[in-house]
Amino acid sequence: MMEQQLNSYLQSMTLEEKVDQLLQLVGAFFEDAGTEGQITGPMASLGITEETVHNVGSVLGLAGAKEVIRVQQAHLSKNRLGIPLLIMADIVHGFKTIFPIPLAIGCSWDMRLAEESATIAAREAAVSGIHVTFAPMVDLVRDPRWGRVMESTGEDPYLNSEFARAFVRGYQGKDLTNDTDRVAACVKHFAAYGAGEGGRDYNTVDLSAWQLREYYLPSYKAALDEGCEMVMTSFNTVEGVAATGNKRLMRDLLRDEWGFDGVLISDWAAIKELIPHGIAEDEREAAQKALLAGVDIEMMTSCYNGHLPELVRSGQLDEALVDEAVMRVLKLKQKLGLFDNPLRGADPEREREIVFCDAHRAVAKELAIKSCVLLKNDSVLPLKRSQHIALIGPFAQSGDILGSWSWSGSQDEAIRVIDGFQSKISSSLLTVATGCSIEDVTAEDMTAEQYAEALQAASQAEIIVLALGERSDMSGEAGSRSNIRLPQAQLELIKRLKTLNKPMVAVLFNGRPLDLHGVIEEADAVLEAWFPGGEGGAAIADLLYGDAEPTGRLTMSFPQSVGQVPVYYNHFNTGRPQLDPNTKERYVSQYLDVPNEPLFPFGYGLSYTEVAYDSIQLSSETLVPGQALTVKVRVTNAGARPVEETVQCYVRDISGDTVRPLKELKDFRKVLLPPGESREVEFALTKPQLRYHHADLSFSSDSGEFAVLTGPNSRDTTEGRFRLVKETGK
Amino acid sequence: MMEQQLNSYLQSMTLEEKVDQLLQLVGAFFEDAGTEGQITGPMASLGITEETVHNVGSVLGLAGAKEVIRVQQAHLSKNRLGIPLLIMADIVHGFKTIFPIPLAIGCSWDMRLAEESATIAAREAAVSGIHVTFAPMVDLVRDPRWGRVMESTGEDPYLNSEFARAFVRGYQGKDLTNDTDRVAACVKHFAAYGAGEGGRDYNTVDLSAWQLREYYLPSYKAALDEGCEMVMTSFNTVEGVAATGNKRLMRDLLRDEWGFDGVLISDWAAIKELIPHGIAEDEREAAQKALLAGVDIEMMTSCYNGHLPELVRSGQLDEALVDEAVMRVLKLKQKLGLFDNPLRGADPEREREIVFCDAHRAVAKELAIKSCVLLKNDSVLPLKRSQHIALIGPFAQSGDILGSWSWSGSQDEAIRVIDGFQSKISSSLLTVATGCSIEDVTAEDMTAEQYAEALQAASQAEIIVLALGERSDMSGEAGSRSNIRLPQAQLELIKRLKTLNKPMVAVLFNGRPLDLHGVIEEADAVLEAWFPGGEGGAAIADLLYGDAEPTGRLTMSFPQSVGQVPVYYNHFNTGRPQLDPNTKERYVSQYLDVPNEPLFPFGYGLSYTEVAYDSIQLSSETLVPGQALTVKVRVTNAGARPVEETVQCYVRDISGDTVRPLKELKDFRKVLLPPGESREVEFALTKPQLRYHHADLSFSSDSGEFAVLTGPNSRDTTEGRFRLVKETGK
Repeated sequence: MMEQQLNSYLQSMTLEEKVDQLLQLVGAFFEDAGTEGQITGPMASLGITEETVHNVGSVLGLAGAKEVIRVQQAHLSKNRLGIPLLIMADIVHGFKTIFPIPLAIGCSWDMRLAEESATIAAREAAVSGIHVTFAPMVDLVRDPRWGRVMESTGEDPYLNSEFARAFVRGYQGKDLTNDTDRVAACVKHFAAYGAGEGGRDYNTVDLSAWQLREYYLPSYKAALDEGCEMVMTSFNTVEGVAATGNKRLMRDLLRDEWGFDGVLISDWAAIKELIPHGIAEDEREAAQKALLAGVDIEMMTSCYNGHLPELVRSGQLDEALVDEAVMRVLKLKQKLGLFDNPLRGADPEREREIVFCDAHRAVAKELAIKSCVLLKNDSVLPLKRSQHIALIGPFAQSGDILGSWSWSGSQDEAIRVIDGFQSKISSSLLTVATGCSIEDVTAEDMTAEQYAEALQAASQAEIIVLALGERSDMSGEAGSRSNIRLPQAQLELIKRLKTLNKPMVAVLFNGRPLDLHGVIEEADAVLEAWFPGGEGGAAIADLLYGDAEPTGRLTMSFPQSVGQVPVYYNHFNTGRPQLDPNTKERYVSQYLDVPNEPLFPFGYGLSYTEVAYDSIQLSSETLVPGQALTVKVRVTNAGARPVEETVQCYVRDISGDTVRPLKELKDFRKVLLPPGESREVEFALTKPQLRYHHADLSFSSDSGEFAVLTGPNSRDTTEGRFRLVKETGK
Repeated sequence: MMEQQLNSYLQSMTLEEKVDQLLQLVGAFFEDAGTEGQITGPMASLGITEETVHNVGSVLGLAGAKEVIRVQQAHLSKNRLGIPLLIMADIVHGFKTIFPIPLAIGCSWDMRLAEESATIAAREAAVSGIHVTFAPMVDLVRDPRWGRVMESTGEDPYLNSEFARAFVRGYQGKDLTNDTDRVAACVKHFAAYGAGEGGRDYNTVDLSAWQLREYYLPSYKAALDEGCEMVMTSFNTVEGVAATGNKRLMRDLLRDEWGFDGVLISDWAAIKELIPHGIAEDEREAAQKALLAGVDIEMMTSCYNGHLPELVRSGQLDEALVDEAVMRVLKLKQKLGLFDNPLRGADPEREREIVFCDAHRAVAKELAIKSCVLLKNDSVLPLKRSQHIALIGPFAQSGDILGSWSWSGSQDEAIRVIDGFQSKISSSLLTVATGCSIEDVTAEDMTAEQYAEALQAASQAEIIVLALGERSDMSGEAGSRSNIRLPQAQLELIKRLKTLNKPMVAVLFNGRPLDLHGVIEEADAVLEAWFPGGEGGAAIADLLYGDAEPTGRLTMSFPQSVGQVPVYYNHFNTGRPQLDPNTKERYVSQYLDVPNEPLFPFGYGLSYTEVAYDSIQLSSETLVPGQALTVKVRVTNAGARPVEETVQCYVRDISGDTVRPLKELKDFRKVLLPPGESREVEFALTKPQLRYHHADLSFSSDSGEFAVLTGPNSRDTTEGRFRLVKETGK
């Protein structure tokens, strides 16, 4: 279908029909399509008519091939022009086959698997009738108090950008029109939603234009460069203006400067929320500001529906702006092939075959294995199959390991930790106890009983394996915590079990970096399992028993305590860096009571072997524009087990127009190293990799001195130096 | 002396002599002026010559009339052109008569006393030979982890601006040239030093240009509007560039836009620190960037001295920039009358008379009384003189109550808490014990003994008065803490004493808002005494015994815990405000585990009486440009004791071009209310008070709806509404 045909649609539409194309409603408006004539429930509260529902452009949160087909067919029968509905949903880390949460996927540093997870999620979603997923979420995150850090791949703009690209490739494939196993991606949340003050969700964000561009925007841009079809606005303010009404951010930057011409959708109710934000007096002004800012679709409020027609008719808004927005929606429908094939991938029979199939689940398990991060291991792991294990803790038998944003997933079908253990050892070697509830309980008797049962269980065993953590709703949207330790009940459980003086392994389930006081010292080994998804228990058992190697590396720093937040690896040096904590020099940038360094830095993770890094070698002392500098480092598996080592390459620009981070990830390689083997890993550094935003927001590199650093994480690096020379004739 | 004469000085100076005028050294360089020819110690490390010392423009940290006279005379005898030295020092909250720390002064809301404290500090400093004080510090602060919050008057831009003006008036008076009891003021730290990330001193600051202008810059501007002679750069970055090398901040904004033509001085070593900041490769580039940015005086590093001459001679810097800077220094010397009277106020005889005189100390006591904030009082205060008191805690007998930045003050001469009590009750009614050390000690035996002694002391008494807190060096410069509770040893002391079930009063000494877990529930009354200065013990005893009324009101919010930081009263509403915490609605901006509200809000403070607020009354529903809206509220002293009530007036702009704070302090009145009396307090609101920075950084008001709120603090307010109408013809 040509643009001309879309234009003819547009010309046939009344102003009201156009505006209705810009409205998105939840499935509930459609499911009881039979009860026509009853304006009740959500319709009444939104103040919309049934006519509007017939003309509406898109729906969210609807899934299941049968239901989608029914809704789409009903819609087409009632829509005057026969314009199909766009079906959107939050498919964030899997549809029914639930992968680890994105923060865990980040820790895999595995773009192939990340892409594969999105491909599978798209396949399951598409066959269930979904056209667009509200993913990837690529917000850069530095504050573990924020519950939605679990949706991000972490604190690094480069790595986040790589993941953004991988997810977009996985969701969208190469041909959205004909490949009906794919869905359109919608990158979110534009912009800088991850920088909410105090880690409180929906809170104010305030960043300099420079910081915004240098650190927070690159991952959105990367998704768009990969062809991401849609963008979602964020709930927060940017430079004093709520993103959804922020013309400078959306119209000037996203549309005009970046040239994004796809669909921009508000987050849930975000247009109407311009009123509580205090940048619109009423729904009318909210509608006006959002459209002027460039927002096409309004999700679940009716400011556009209620006011755009009048705003246009009164001459306060140019109808051309409405037309533009409608055309973007129609073009997306066209790109998804909906005019020709309004049911697209929805196929109940195939749905039964492929959704949650073994092949998909196998990938979920593989990714869970790669996502877990071994934080500590004092020679207690891997476990031996001959050992008697006491598996204790509220996550020992819990299915709450999928993590937030897994609405189509089933906790009942999840492989739990206990399932994993049962697959490894006979029941005679396994004693299980819940130990305590996840959070403090008021029922003291019950708690005492649970503790007693746990002590009893542990007393029989050689090794205690603790399965601890946060309920999945203690992170995720609106899941901010000011205290980021494990809940007190679980810390108390550890303390009591510690009195037995037995080897203790802690497996942690959580959606954020935690303050590990009360765990990290007490346990002999700590495996950060995050929310590992539906195959989590199997993956964890493989890792604990050494049937798989732990290879995950943190992509978000673990703070010493919440009082140290934010702490992230790519910070600036300051004018008074703390060079040697041991000197106790006063007038340097530090806390009196904790180190500057996080407990575990970005890139950190142990394996079951030892990998030695030789000194870094540079092909030259200078980097000549147009050429590459070769950076080599030899890595040797000095231990007795194989490993897939993630060799990391950082750069520091010693002096620039603005301050530059101490380390900045530029590249990494995953290297398979059998025991005893050695490999030389090469990175090719080029001038474009050294660009950054100057004080005037221009993007370029400066000649001068640089450090290049390689290592297994952002802390333990070996450094070389080179100079970027000026271009000839410059 | 005319500008012409200064010009002739300038023309007589060699380039090296000019550059030396821009150098500031500590007193140590001058005191051993007799040992000429020995280039050792500091001179060697700075790489400067004795010739430079003879030509240097200013000195810091030198005081004492005799010594200053000796140094100045020696200098004049050696300086080829006879240009006198400028003597500067950090006189932050008193010279020898030590007033409460500025954060405490803030809590007085008393501009008259604040000004008086600066007048006295200036008088004592000036007679001791000082010409310039590095004060006021007016950095807006929101993060209690930062140690230097003790130097600020708090979190509100309006109140900070009022204090900035009061301090400048107090230091400078009306005629700096002839009033030799005054000193020039130097407002600091330009800009936004208070916004350091994570509350770590010297750390990165990142703010939007909008936030910077709307919240962080007004207090500096207020000081300059009041005629403040000097500005000091801050250590932090602003929009990615260290302030001291930030041309956009200094040259473009401070000099060109604001028209500041006074002396801009670097903070200690801040020019050289452009190198570790990573915006200068070496001292030469640091010198170049700082001078281009507009910094006149380099404090305690020698980048200018070592490199400006060569930079000028090689044509890389215009000598006119050096000349400008030198002229600013010479003009300040002229304004201080130093060319005619190089010894200025320095007078050993008068020094003995007025420094630390009774009249000054009486003001210090008065201000200390006004600065203490009564946070809790469950009918235990005021104390009765008949009660047997156990005075317990590490601050019971400590002189460490002056606070940071009181180098000329003497802890030995401070009135301690015990002194205050001894002045009120006979020794037979007073039992004293230290209880514990300020911080945890490793000597367990000693601790146990101290605890036992404290319990013993308390067991004899009717009421326990605890004097607890932080050592003064746990705040102040480089005094950042990640944990802002009282040290564990003191919390343990409280816990043990609590077992006695006796009324307990806690008096707190600290330089920051604390997390009061372990204190606020346990104590029956809590008096926040801050670091009250040299008369602290007397002021506290007066307050505790009701010989003075507690009237202080917080100017910085007390967080529930460090995990809630930053928390401040003038925050934005967000798009999803938590309207009713009791509904436990999930999708609102909140933490799962603590309220959004601080423990004690801005403006909060109790007295010994009850003041009732009637409903607010507005003279009109509209505010017409050019006219004033009268806001009235009747306040009644419903209790049995007199009070000076601080009636506060806030405004909220309901909808604007940018988001606007929920409450914004616009005015306040201090009202004396005898018991039973009632007064109507009036505020006149005008359009200029409703201006704010728009998204394009313009400064204006918008017509539309406003709320106006009055009350005893920022939380407990009564609200009225009005509309700002458009100007006729607009």
